[in-house]
Amino acid sequence: MSYYSPSVEKLIEAFERLPSIGNKTAIRLAFHMLNASQEEINEFTSAIINAKKNLKYCSICYNISDTDPCPICGNAKRDATSICVVEDVRDVIAMERTHEFKGTYHVLHGSISPMNGIGPEDIKIKELLNRINENPNIKEIILATNPRVEGEATAMYISKLIKPLGIKVTRIAHGIPVGGDLEYTDEITLMKAFEGRREL
Amino acid sequence: MSYYSPSVEKLIEAFERLPSIGNKTAIRLAFHMLNASQEEINEFTSAIINAKKNLKYCSICYNISDTDPCPICGNAKRDATSICVVEDVRDVIAMERTHEFKGTYHVLHGSISPMNGIGPEDIKIKELLNRINENPNIKEIILATNPRVEGEATAMYISKLIKPLGIKVTRIAHGIPVGGDLEYTDEITLMKAFEGRREL
Repeated sequence: MSYYSPSVEKLIEAFERLPSIGNKTAIRLAFHMLNASQEEINEFTSAIINAKKNLKYCSICYNISDTDPCPICGNAKRDATSICVVEDVRDVIAMERTHEFKGTYHVLHGSISPMNGIGPEDIKIKELLNRINENPNIKEIILATNPRVEGEATAMYISKLIKPLGIKVTRIAHGIPVGGDLEYTDEITLMKAFEGRREL
Repeated sequence: MSYYSPSVEKLIEAFERLPSIGNKTAIRLAFHMLNASQEEINEFTSAIINAKKNLKYCSICYNISDTDPCPICGNAKRDATSICVVEDVRDVIAMERTHEFKGTYHVLHGSISPMNGIGPEDIKIKELLNRINENPNIKEIILATNPRVEGEATAMYISKLIKPLGIKVTRIAHGIPVGGDLEYTDEITLMKAFEGRREL
């Protein structure tokens, strides 16, 4: 049985659908919104709508960006001969925070996961190969997928495709605890993992 | 230094301003929104906008309601001679969940808190007195403000105003742990607190 009025109930349900938000938090957030000024409401909802509307991907590395190419691919000081391959946009941010890597990125937007029906053709592997074929100067591909079953499988798959081309393929070291998330790793651990990368 | 594109940064900041949402959760929610379909986005933002737009208060008890009077005040089966005074709309829901109280409510929308500059005139005490003056049949006022300094002070203040009118004024028992929140109390404790109410 519902005790709230229908529109409040709908608002609570909307918050409950978000990840990591339970019923109590959803109620707290819903009432925060009800008590917020009209200006705050507009600011919040338009932030969501605009972010979705402005969502663009860099046509080179597939990172989220307001410009194409993205600030990293468009920066002449970055070493375009070295490509760090990551699963997610957030992993680019995690790598950038280490201030260690001066090359460019390639965002796969996922990892190979037969359990979830995600095959090599569902992530940006083809785009990575095209990028390598178009640029004969590329020297190193650093595979920085997550140290999980899916990430390891994806790294192995890409490695097998690229090694025959005579390009150095490296994998970041297992400084990151196995089973962890690249996104939530502290800078030092991530830096160590980057330094200890080994050729596959 | 910001690593995200401006509109993504804005979205993360919008989520961070919500209560109980830290930076990591804000980033997770922001990326959930970026990956959501346009339909989900519309549903979420319109739930917020509509809830705010449809926000109405019952002109009798000041509970949030889509109708005026609210379903409780408009229900002839509820005992209008007994009024349960609560601080917040969520406290009405908490009381209703006990299925113990058959009277009506009065929502103060806050408690007297000199520290935060909230005086008796800032909450719906005047409206409660008008309601009592207009209805000579009222027999009991149950003060169910939170068992905190502010709630106790509010209860004492209201009690001193109403007792001279010859109306029974009761306070819910301290079955609720002192320092707790009415909203998060389990039904049994709240029921005990209600049963053990004593005259002030």
